[in-house]
Amino acid sequence: MNLFGKHLLTTQEWSVSEIEAVLGLADEMKKDRFSSKYTSLLLHKTFFMFFYNPSVRTRQSFECAATELGGHAQFLEPSSMRLKTSKSAGETNEDAAKVMSRYACGLGIRMLEDKVQKYGDGDAFLREYCQYGAIPVLSMAHDKYHPCQGFADVQGAREHLGGISGKKLLMVWGHGALARSWCSVQESILINSRLGMNVTLAYPKGYDLDPEVIANCKKNCQAAGTKFEITNDPVECYRGADIVYSRNWMSPHAYDPVEGFQKKREVEAALKHAEWITDSKKMAVTNNALYTHPMPVDRGHEVSDEVCSGPRSIIYDVAENRLHVQKAIMALTMSKFDYKPSGKSASKKHGVAA
Amino acid sequence: MNLFGKHLLTTQEWSVSEIEAVLGLADEMKKDRFSSKYTSLLLHKTFFMFFYNPSVRTRQSFECAATELGGHAQFLEPSSMRLKTSKSAGETNEDAAKVMSRYACGLGIRMLEDKVQKYGDGDAFLREYCQYGAIPVLSMAHDKYHPCQGFADVQGAREHLGGISGKKLLMVWGHGALARSWCSVQESILINSRLGMNVTLAYPKGYDLDPEVIANCKKNCQAAGTKFEITNDPVECYRGADIVYSRNWMSPHAYDPVEGFQKKREVEAALKHAEWITDSKKMAVTNNALYTHPMPVDRGHEVSDEVCSGPRSIIYDVAENRLHVQKAIMALTMSKFDYKPSGKSASKKHGVAA
Amino acid sequence: MNLFGKHLLTTQEWSVSEIEAVLGLADEMKKDRFSSKYTSLLLHKTFFMFFYNPSVRTRQSFECAATELGGHAQFLEPSSMRLKTSKSAGETNEDAAKVMSRYACGLGIRMLEDKVQKYGDGDAFLREYCQYGAIPVLSMAHDKYHPCQGFADVQGAREHLGGISGKKLLMVWGHGALARSWCSVQESILINSRLGMNVTLAYPKGYDLDPEVIANCKKNCQAAGTKFEITNDPVECYRGADIVYSRNWMSPHAYDPVEGFQKKREVEAALKHAEWITDSKKMAVTNNALYTHPMPVDRGHEVSDEVCSGPRSIIYDVAENRLHVQKAIMALTMSKFDYKPSGKSASKKHGVAA
Repeated sequence: MNLFGKHLLTTQEWSVSEIEAVLGLADEMKKDRFSSKYTSLLLHKTFFMFFYNPSVRTRQSFECAATELGGHAQFLEPSSMRLKTSKSAGETNEDAAKVMSRYACGLGIRMLEDKVQKYGDGDAFLREYCQYGAIPVLSMAHDKYHPCQGFADVQGAREHLGGISGKKLLMVWGHGALARSWCSVQESILINSRLGMNVTLAYPKGYDLDPEVIANCKKNCQAAGTKFEITNDPVECYRGADIVYSRNWMSPHAYDPVEGFQKKREVEAALKHAEWITDSKKMAVTNNALYTHPMPVDRGHEVSDEVCSGPRSIIYDVAENRLHVQKAIMALTMSKFDYKPSGKSASKKHGVAA
Repeated sequence: MNLFGKHLLTTQEWSVSEIEAVLGLADEMKKDRFSSKYTSLLLHKTFFMFFYNPSVRTRQSFECAATELGGHAQFLEPSSMRLKTSKSAGETNEDAAKVMSRYACGLGIRMLEDKVQKYGDGDAFLREYCQYGAIPVLSMAHDKYHPCQGFADVQGAREHLGGISGKKLLMVWGHGALARSWCSVQESILINSRLGMNVTLAYPKGYDLDPEVIANCKKNCQAAGTKFEITNDPVECYRGADIVYSRNWMSPHAYDPVEGFQKKREVEAALKHAEWITDSKKMAVTNNALYTHPMPVDRGHEVSDEVCSGPRSIIYDVAENRLHVQKAIMALTMSKFDYKPSGKSASKKHGVAA
Repeated sequence: MNLFGKHLLTTQEWSVSEIEAVLGLADEMKKDRFSSKYTSLLLHKTFFMFFYNPSVRTRQSFECAATELGGHAQFLEPSSMRLKTSKSAGETNEDAAKVMSRYACGLGIRMLEDKVQKYGDGDAFLREYCQYGAIPVLSMAHDKYHPCQGFADVQGAREHLGGISGKKLLMVWGHGALARSWCSVQESILINSRLGMNVTLAYPKGYDLDPEVIANCKKNCQAAGTKFEITNDPVECYRGADIVYSRNWMSPHAYDPVEGFQKKREVEAALKHAEWITDSKKMAVTNNALYTHPMPVDRGHEVSDEVCSGPRSIIYDVAENRLHVQKAIMALTMSKFDYKPSGKSASKKHGVAA
């Protein structure tokens, strides 16, 4: 399998065996983090990170990843860089992408809902860089998808559950004042349905996600012979879940009637749904479910402290996994690393067939 | 001696022998800056730098230090990172610290008086990261202390004076429009009293420092059998000094009556005390004293150009020493470096007994 | 030839053989980009980059250059660093330069027209750092010159034309709303006239460049026996050109009558000259000229898409060359690299005599 040069905007566009390669290598890298097998893969190479939105974990973990592979990640804030976006004039993306391809081995881009005129513009922006650049483009979270978070979620779940195939994922909306992006949530239901999980998606009326993502998620479940359901019941959805993932997200009306992201209105609406919090009482009807979240957690809104800091919470492990999956992705797409699965990884043991 | 994993908020919380280990290693590193003994100590490792306040020297010297130890320092400006402080909501420090511990080998934090609601909040913030994180937390200057500056001061003084034990340090307030933090000043009188200096602290009425620091300084002098005095005389204080350290600092009323740092009022008050400048006339009654300052110097207010650029000024050497002491601290707390004092360092020759 | 420690503010202050050394090494580095001959030249060393103005390519290419030489470039934004400029109070440049010399192997500074009170202040600022610092100071573009762009232009032209000696360079003003700096344009006519090109400088009345630069350019042409001419004809100037370089630039009145850069007035004036665009019709009368531009290109104003993306455009190659020439400059001025021209480089083949 040769992933060299491959873009990553969503795991939905990669084959299951490609996804398993990332997860397998990430497991090996986690076990032997500073092995000389990995520490020269990007030696003297540069990875560009474009942060249209600020970030804690994504910045930290990508820059660490480059360092641990022997290379260097440049932290770039394009808002001050005279580049063209859907909200600003400047150098064409063609010109920028073609020059950057001469300097770097890869390009990560983060562009969330408040940096674009309408949902989908961020995705289109990344695809323009894919089109014109000669180096792999990697989503570091954009308005539609967050593939690295999806990989980290799965790595974490497998570490704690063994396999995830046939288990139930509850993806549940959480109330709060953050009006968050759809990207982590959409990526998670896509990759988990792809790898054989039953998916229950629960949210208050009015918080539908991208219909294209839902359609793909249904197809994934159909192909795997698993169940996909959507419910608006904030309590019953927990029944029998093996993993509970709670997260606030914005409504599909976030961008209308005027152009641009309407944060204030979203926040006001979201705060009305206080019953949408993951707490111990709700967790009691699950199948002793793991609790996960992509962080930062809005404690007291999305989830109670008791659950979030409880014995079944895997949030820190999943956050750590961001580092390992990103190292694996960078090694496979940006270096000539010839990865041979060892046959001993957790992914190998528990993964579904490719 | 094993310093691996140890936090550093002030030298007052380290033993004298631990302090001497840093100084001894810093001397060796200064003599043999790029020795292969040191250049792989943090190989492929990441040090996080949190700059709540901007900085020139601290940023430059810490990032250099990581590079010279083979690692990489990430420059992070948390003001844009949605982290919780005493002035802003966001992710809990527990969550942030626990995740960062998975990525990095150490965490430096800079948080000065204007970034907190009241004196002490910065110190409390660092202690929260110490409590929850699994990696050493290092003050890069906070509202109470600046341990790296203190180490650099002592290294510089010893280079020029041989030993400092039994000599007289004059720490003297300088006028000017900067309303500066107490951190460098407090750290300096603590570490120098600890290592055997007589300390004279001189300032206009109304510029008292933290009573806890003064109490500790007195204890240090008592233990060492040296003299500690406070005076409000801007001239006589220079008599017999071996080192003169002048520096503007804010009054203890900087934060009242309302919450938050009152810079304007502080500046107006400070500018009234024009007699508080270190000049050649005052230096003439010293014991041919060295002049030092943690920089940036407010020339013409804190000190005259003649003294600051004169033959007894060691400001550039002390600034350089920031690099060496920080490398030593990072090597000792963040790597498994097994430091054995060579017995030839200046610190060894001149240091007080541990 | 020993260039160790040498400052670079403009190629006009370097000898032709020094210029050829940079170009020769840059060619070798381009052919063998990650050769072990080069990848340890700045090992564990730090290069400071001071960006008073934001940048895409300059930032990316310098930081890449340091990484590829084994070192690390620190990205510093001095606007938040309390340093003194012609527009702000702060630490003296003497103090800053002397301390930085203790930490780093070199210092790059970018300071364009909008960050200074009047034309020339940026150049004077860089010269102050040269005066006080003990490490090489490198212009990363300032109000007068942009030496790295000049080197990249020549490397690109030689790659495509073989030699440039005796050929004709057309440097032509382009209309548009950018009111750009003189630095790239002035550097290009200086280095190209120095290396034997005939230079035609074409612009609308009122857009004269720095008279000192024009005088030097004339001297360069006189010494080389070539022709230097200035014309205000936007069409005839193209006749017989071998390289066309179009670029918007501000007028000499940009800073008057009041102090500070008058962008709005400049833009309004520049937009009146719509006939000053490089298009296919104009290119038709050239000697099948190459098209070049330092980027970012203002497509549709400075040049038509057809020319800019056409087969004779070398803009991406020139942009790539920024990396190679900067690596060569850094290797020669900041490391002890003992460069021996191989006799096989393009520069060697095509260069004029030293």
